[in-house]
Amino acid sequence: MSKLETGLRPGRFKINRSEKGQKERTKKESVEMKSKESKFSRFSMFSPTDYRYAVDDLREYLSEDAFVRYKAKVEAALAIALADRGIMKKEHCEEIVRACDEVTAAEVYEEEERTRHDIRALVNVIRRRVSEEARPYVHLCATSYDIVDTANALRYKDALEKVIIPDLIALERVWISIAAEEKDTLQIGRTHGQHAIPITFGFAIAVYVHRLGTCILRLKRAAESLEGKFSGAVGAYNAISAVFDDAESFERDVLKQLNLKPALISTQIVPPENILEVVHAVIACFSVLANFCDDMRHLQRSEIAEVSERVHETQVGSSTMPQKRNPVGFENVKSIWKRFMPQILTMHLDQISEHQRDLTNSASQRYIAELLVAFDHCIRRLKRISERLTVDRERMRRNFNISRDDIIAEPLYIMLALHGHPDAHEKVRTLSFKAYKEGKSLRQIAMQDEEIAYYLQKFTDIQKEIVFNPEKYTGIAQRKVEMVIKYWKERLNL
Amino acid sequence: MSKLETGLRPGRFKINRSEKGQKERTKKESVEMKSKESKFSRFSMFSPTDYRYAVDDLREYLSEDAFVRYKAKVEAALAIALADRGIMKKEHCEEIVRACDEVTAAEVYEEEERTRHDIRALVNVIRRRVSEEARPYVHLCATSYDIVDTANALRYKDALEKVIIPDLIALERVWISIAAEEKDTLQIGRTHGQHAIPITFGFAIAVYVHRLGTCILRLKRAAESLEGKFSGAVGAYNAISAVFDDAESFERDVLKQLNLKPALISTQIVPPENILEVVHAVIACFSVLANFCDDMRHLQRSEIAEVSERVHETQVGSSTMPQKRNPVGFENVKSIWKRFMPQILTMHLDQISEHQRDLTNSASQRYIAELLVAFDHCIRRLKRISERLTVDRERMRRNFNISRDDIIAEPLYIMLALHGHPDAHEKVRTLSFKAYKEGKSLRQIAMQDEEIAYYLQKFTDIQKEIVFNPEKYTGIAQRKVEMVIKYWKERLNL
Amino acid sequence: MSKLETGLRPGRFKINRSEKGQKERTKKESVEMKSKESKFSRFSMFSPTDYRYAVDDLREYLSEDAFVRYKAKVEAALAIALADRGIMKKEHCEEIVRACDEVTAAEVYEEEERTRHDIRALVNVIRRRVSEEARPYVHLCATSYDIVDTANALRYKDALEKVIIPDLIALERVWISIAAEEKDTLQIGRTHGQHAIPITFGFAIAVYVHRLGTCILRLKRAAESLEGKFSGAVGAYNAISAVFDDAESFERDVLKQLNLKPALISTQIVPPENILEVVHAVIACFSVLANFCDDMRHLQRSEIAEVSERVHETQVGSSTMPQKRNPVGFENVKSIWKRFMPQILTMHLDQISEHQRDLTNSASQRYIAELLVAFDHCIRRLKRISERLTVDRERMRRNFNISRDDIIAEPLYIMLALHGHPDAHEKVRTLSFKAYKEGKSLRQIAMQDEEIAYYLQKFTDIQKEIVFNPEKYTGIAQRKVEMVIKYWKERLNL
Amino acid sequence: MSKLETGLRPGRFKINRSEKGQKERTKKESVEMKSKESKFSRFSMFSPTDYRYAVDDLREYLSEDAFVRYKAKVEAALAIALADRGIMKKEHCEEIVRACDEVTAAEVYEEEERTRHDIRALVNVIRRRVSEEARPYVHLCATSYDIVDTANALRYKDALEKVIIPDLIALERVWISIAAEEKDTLQIGRTHGQHAIPITFGFAIAVYVHRLGTCILRLKRAAESLEGKFSGAVGAYNAISAVFDDAESFERDVLKQLNLKPALISTQIVPPENILEVVHAVIACFSVLANFCDDMRHLQRSEIAEVSERVHETQVGSSTMPQKRNPVGFENVKSIWKRFMPQILTMHLDQISEHQRDLTNSASQRYIAELLVAFDHCIRRLKRISERLTVDRERMRRNFNISRDDIIAEPLYIMLALHGHPDAHEKVRTLSFKAYKEGKSLRQIAMQDEEIAYYLQKFTDIQKEIVFNPEKYTGIAQRKVEMVIKYWKERLNL
Repeated sequence: MSKLETGLRPGRFKINRSEKGQKERTKKESVEMKSKESKFSRFSMFSPTDYRYAVDDLREYLSEDAFVRYKAKVEAALAIALADRGIMKKEHCEEIVRACDEVTAAEVYEEEERTRHDIRALVNVIRRRVSEEARPYVHLCATSYDIVDTANALRYKDALEKVIIPDLIALERVWISIAAEEKDTLQIGRTHGQHAIPITFGFAIAVYVHRLGTCILRLKRAAESLEGKFSGAVGAYNAISAVFDDAESFERDVLKQLNLKPALISTQIVPPENILEVVHAVIACFSVLANFCDDMRHLQRSEIAEVSERVHETQVGSSTMPQKRNPVGFENVKSIWKRFMPQILTMHLDQISEHQRDLTNSASQRYIAELLVAFDHCIRRLKRISERLTVDRERMRRNFNISRDDIIAEPLYIMLALHGHPDAHEKVRTLSFKAYKEGKSLRQIAMQDEEIAYYLQKFTDIQKEIVFNPEKYTGIAQRKVEMVIKYWKERLNL
Repeated sequence: MSKLETGLRPGRFKINRSEKGQKERTKKESVEMKSKESKFSRFSMFSPTDYRYAVDDLREYLSEDAFVRYKAKVEAALAIALADRGIMKKEHCEEIVRACDEVTAAEVYEEEERTRHDIRALVNVIRRRVSEEARPYVHLCATSYDIVDTANALRYKDALEKVIIPDLIALERVWISIAAEEKDTLQIGRTHGQHAIPITFGFAIAVYVHRLGTCILRLKRAAESLEGKFSGAVGAYNAISAVFDDAESFERDVLKQLNLKPALISTQIVPPENILEVVHAVIACFSVLANFCDDMRHLQRSEIAEVSERVHETQVGSSTMPQKRNPVGFENVKSIWKRFMPQILTMHLDQISEHQRDLTNSASQRYIAELLVAFDHCIRRLKRISERLTVDRERMRRNFNISRDDIIAEPLYIMLALHGHPDAHEKVRTLSFKAYKEGKSLRQIAMQDEEIAYYLQKFTDIQKEIVFNPEKYTGIAQRKVEMVIKYWKERLNL
Repeated sequence: MSKLETGLRPGRFKINRSEKGQKERTKKESVEMKSKESKFSRFSMFSPTDYRYAVDDLREYLSEDAFVRYKAKVEAALAIALADRGIMKKEHCEEIVRACDEVTAAEVYEEEERTRHDIRALVNVIRRRVSEEARPYVHLCATSYDIVDTANALRYKDALEKVIIPDLIALERVWISIAAEEKDTLQIGRTHGQHAIPITFGFAIAVYVHRLGTCILRLKRAAESLEGKFSGAVGAYNAISAVFDDAESFERDVLKQLNLKPALISTQIVPPENILEVVHAVIACFSVLANFCDDMRHLQRSEIAEVSERVHETQVGSSTMPQKRNPVGFENVKSIWKRFMPQILTMHLDQISEHQRDLTNSASQRYIAELLVAFDHCIRRLKRISERLTVDRERMRRNFNISRDDIIAEPLYIMLALHGHPDAHEKVRTLSFKAYKEGKSLRQIAMQDEEIAYYLQKFTDIQKEIVFNPEKYTGIAQRKVEMVIKYWKERLNL
Repeated sequence: MSKLETGLRPGRFKINRSEKGQKERTKKESVEMKSKESKFSRFSMFSPTDYRYAVDDLREYLSEDAFVRYKAKVEAALAIALADRGIMKKEHCEEIVRACDEVTAAEVYEEEERTRHDIRALVNVIRRRVSEEARPYVHLCATSYDIVDTANALRYKDALEKVIIPDLIALERVWISIAAEEKDTLQIGRTHGQHAIPITFGFAIAVYVHRLGTCILRLKRAAESLEGKFSGAVGAYNAISAVFDDAESFERDVLKQLNLKPALISTQIVPPENILEVVHAVIACFSVLANFCDDMRHLQRSEIAEVSERVHETQVGSSTMPQKRNPVGFENVKSIWKRFMPQILTMHLDQISEHQRDLTNSASQRYIAELLVAFDHCIRRLKRISERLTVDRERMRRNFNISRDDIIAEPLYIMLALHGHPDAHEKVRTLSFKAYKEGKSLRQIAMQDEEIAYYLQKFTDIQKEIVFNPEKYTGIAQRKVEMVIKYWKERLNL
């Protein structure tokens, strides 16, 4: 294998040049980045959630911009409650509300450079936008986490109720329609990856309809349970009761404007158990999606091939093996689950906050937004794949046929037992083992067995049918599918 | 430092002898272990849950012996349901029920050596104890996990409802009584480990009363949600509908005897989400205990010393520092939490089971029992420590006094704002910073400040009292304690 | 379906009786348990590690009995070092060494009831066994964790070096022999669960040989890195330097007798990073086993059936489906991995210990023994299954044949490219897509394509062979197997 | 508290308007976002790593832009190796190298919209930039993960070696200088949060110097262990050996240009254990930082106040309590640790990849970049805080004094023992308990005790000094600090 003619190794040279080019470009970029925020692109970002798995519809709830707006909204609600009680004039309140409507993340971050305190920065920015008369009332009686925890409860609730739960329900609808369409499609049931006894493909999907439905309801309930707080720096309403006699009803007044309820008791922060419930419900649900993806991935294996992600004409399966049809969507969802599932631990760690709180839950809780976005990305991707899922009924039947003459073991042993065979399971197990060793089917072996023959003559026709027509041996699979669909349509008001 | 007189290094010699002795003893023991089970002691065990943190009251639910008994109980319920429908004679059913009442783990394990299948081993053992006529009906129509999942639902429910939840409620009662007793005890509130503004110690405890109460209710609900199943090998009732027309009502009949409901739909196993809820509720609750322990540990620090675990006269604090009074109970609970909290991940991993199930959740789920025992050990230990908690009110007041002249910052800035100071927070922050730098108290600095003086003359007497009597600045702490206690006594029927 | 004749529902009755029977029995048992330790059986235990997955060979290192013996061994080493320096008489030292050789867990636990301090209990028990003259020297200058951490380092090292690593090497040997035997066995390579291009089965196993080998080396290194300490209560050798001028060399002397080195610096405890390395290495290795099990489970799927766990004649696959051949061993290992893998988090949590240490790592670290036992159980089980693994070469070839005419895509596109086709990958991808849609093989479609025909005529014979003899398209699989085996045999001195 | 005069509730109105305003703005934004990438700001992002904790210096390694550049660099190295062996002409190679130098993430993502395959998209984009003659050689013989895994190894190595490890070393330097400066500063040692026996503050820091040093070395070693691969779609070099006889040396040639070594054997991907080691080393190190932060947080508690984060004049401690001096930096680092520490689990999950690989590690591994950035943010922040750490030596001595008369317990019991007291520990423990109950110091009680008096007269002057001059009882703390600093300066070439 000859070298290139020239003694100069151009590659090495080029690579060096390229590296230098890169460095220069990077340094230039870096300067520009500092000079002008807008030079950032999403590809300058580090988190895949931002450059690859973002969900635009969630930006108004879960981006940092949105968070600032939500916090400002809580400040506005406070101003209104203060004005309602005559603490300040209506026009000053209006000034504050307007200012709250206008603040942006960029100016808050700039101010934070100076104050090194995020909420104080927000307050300063709002104050700067209002008259000197209005200023004293901005944030009055509030502690930072009255604002932060309340804003978070509100935006998580909004993101869940307006985007994520509807997305889950849309996915549930798709699964329901697959279950309905495939409720009679014969499929071999598999346990331990081994052919067991038959079900229908619709039945397999109906199990997911049920599990997802259960998780949706729990997530809804968890979202509804989110609470705000307005009880001050240590939760005892110290500041508020310095101003009002009825601190708790003042708290209710502020939160009522945001459609939130206060926690029964709080410290500087809302007790962490309710947001924990939300994240737990999300991850429990996410794991159901992961299980679905695993099932579909395996049903798409070359040797099984019962389902597949539909392939786009222009889609490339492999950069080197052009024939590949890979379950990349299912793999993607499973993979993102692997990244985010362990985040539940962060929540348990954050259940611990010393005394009236320490701040070690602050940065960590900011990442809840990222979890919700990644989760929603997966829901949406899974919905799209599920809608286009290719089901190969013919192949399902062929796979079933591989084992049709062996899976009679269960009905055979039951019928033997019902006809008084004292050791029916062991009898059939022995026959199965013999069949396996001789490379025959259980049916063949059973048919040649004298003891079986003796009992067979006692079987009714229906019993024979049950044993020897294994494609009928699907129990109440179809009926169950209908029942499950009906149940979940009602529970979820579909 | 001289050697021992003799040239022989006795230590080296001794150690070697000792090692040899140990080896011999161990080998001998090992032989004996094989020959006779009873030679095991709990100190031969590997898991601290068994040799150190066991809870005897849970053995009848959560030991392996108990598990075998529970599975046999489900087999008995099946026999009765079969007999109820006339499939077998009453006397045969009675034989089976009696046999189920008598099986032991030891004989099942012995049989499992042969069958390498735990449930088949159990069935064989039961079968051996009944007449030839009764044998065909043992386990008829059931698949292993009809028995296993149902038995687990039942025993976890029993363990929770009969032991663990009552233990939690007992702990809640202790905390309620501390909250009540200490509701007026002045304590400095702490955020970021820094003195903030005052609360009462009862208020701090009331937060835990609320969080624990919340968790108890959720755990109760989760325990109630546990479901059984009797839907056969792949969940489609294949075997049962070969015998009965109404497979689902047969399932209900079996489970009704055990006070369980069936899952709406199942595969070979009950959908994993309900047992997940139980473990989640346990760990959420465990984390609240861990937080409590951390708080108490820190309040017991030498410099703070507001509370302490009561010391037994004979208790040794340190093997080398005889003066130590260590919060070992609180540390123990926190430590066990660190071991078991991550088990939640095992549950999420077990939410994934391929197709109609794979067996990779089998061994892992066996460890739920260990979690429940370790959790209950912690509840009980924490209850004992809490009952004997020493609260040093005098010290609390002294600690409060350290900051009494600085924590006026919040009420001062609020009053300034209410009197129209346009930048009250910044004003007080600057004074505080000055005080900090000059090593004075904020009160001292504020009193010398002309601008403050100008506003002070506008303050009402009550307002002055609020600002300058910081021990009164506890908001509605006392009222909140009462309210929280009342609420939880009602919710938990105490 | 008729009821039993009698109006009495015998089942209900029986069940009730049975419950009562159980309660009585249990209560009786419970009394007995208290009265006599020996009434415990392993089935009274809660942890599956104790009643089901125990490894007897590890009891002398990892049981609680063993732990007490190891701690006593460290006390003996201390006594010898003291005697060596003339602090006490040789005969007193011998008394202590003998006492250390004789203490049992049972007596220590009994004493701990009183002292509530485990090491002080041990010390008291040793002291009781020696003369009054020897007593002052028992544990002199030591703090509890000088003993505990040193004993743990020692027993973990012993368990790893004497049992677990040899077991891993035994498993590695088995895998090496499979790789060697199957190095020429054609198998379709699979990516995304899809047929890709061929390898040999030996090659697939060789990857595991390499990964396991890597992990064994790391575990060995981690085990060797374990260190002891004898630096006293806060790590500054306060007590020791009150007695000796050369505290560090005294520490070295104590540890030298146990073949351990001291940590460069310690607090009350050895820095946690080295034991973390051990647990990390264990879990990294465990995950390789889990991957192997997953691969084998999938290769055992009914539709693939390339390998299987050998079945015992008496083994029951399913309690209800007698024909099943389940990969229960592989499933078991995967399942135990799911339980123990998250324990790595406990280690990271235990890296945090406040100041010169808090005790919140005490209970949690006790569970390392359980992890090691469960891990070793899995190694041994996997070795047994691997030894008996059934490889179906015929089936492997049949599975390969399914795709033999499609997997030519890669070599075809490469040859096209080498012959100057400007867009070879896209060309072949399009043909593959066409083949897929028309239900034909890529070979068929390619053979009919004019453009392909044009390039084909340029191919050399060898190139045609490469493209159209896909069973030869296994790269250097065989050579790589040999190389990997050779490498690891040398590295592990096999 | 009166309402505002007007019946109209302006707040409610305003809020509604505001909501509407927000919606409109958001919708407008959303449209703009779609129309023009540059409208994104970092505040539109979801991940705190992007909008808040980003490290600009890491963008050239760990941003998505950088990843594309690194992948292109690997494609260039491939082209050069192909040209070196005469497969293509030098000028075509130069075209490809130049194209690789120019591609951007944005164009790759646009192309990926069509191909739905990231590497194929990159390849297409490169191809488009070169002449028709050069095209066939782009990506020839490579599979996607030859590129991806190699690029990742390279960029992670670069990020670690060029930024993160230097940052760690910079932090280590700061800690070394604190240890050196404070090596004689008396501080009470604390175990269980209780005063134990004295150390020096430098000694406490030296422990961290050692632990961090250990972790840095491990991280370096792990980074060096990262390997690339060029073994094709299933790892058997199928494609490469179709073109070259010496596939492995071709692989070495490609990787040599990137200063990487190949894995001994690979599948489609590099064995996951080496990148696991990197992440493990990162998290082990991160946990040491977290421990340091916890220690400092507690030392900053109001009652202890031995250290504090220096406060900026303009910094706001609390939005409502202007006097607060919070350890927000330490809290921030601890909090981010809580979020990222559990990511180690994702790595263990990703150790499992079916057969020659499935894609479920793809998305999850993308998040390694985010971890590295968050980690580096914490290192840098901690370095800044550490540099400005305020140490209050006076306060340390005052805290020590609290216990100076009790901590004599250990030396007292040792001296008693050395003078033959048969039960010295118990004697001193009893005295300590008495002191505790009577509210006296141990010294006071001991001085009044007759038995003690008897032994005291036997003490040498030096022994009395050791016992009754507790500020001297710091063992070899100072010497150890020097030794540890020396050791780590050498090991890390500082």
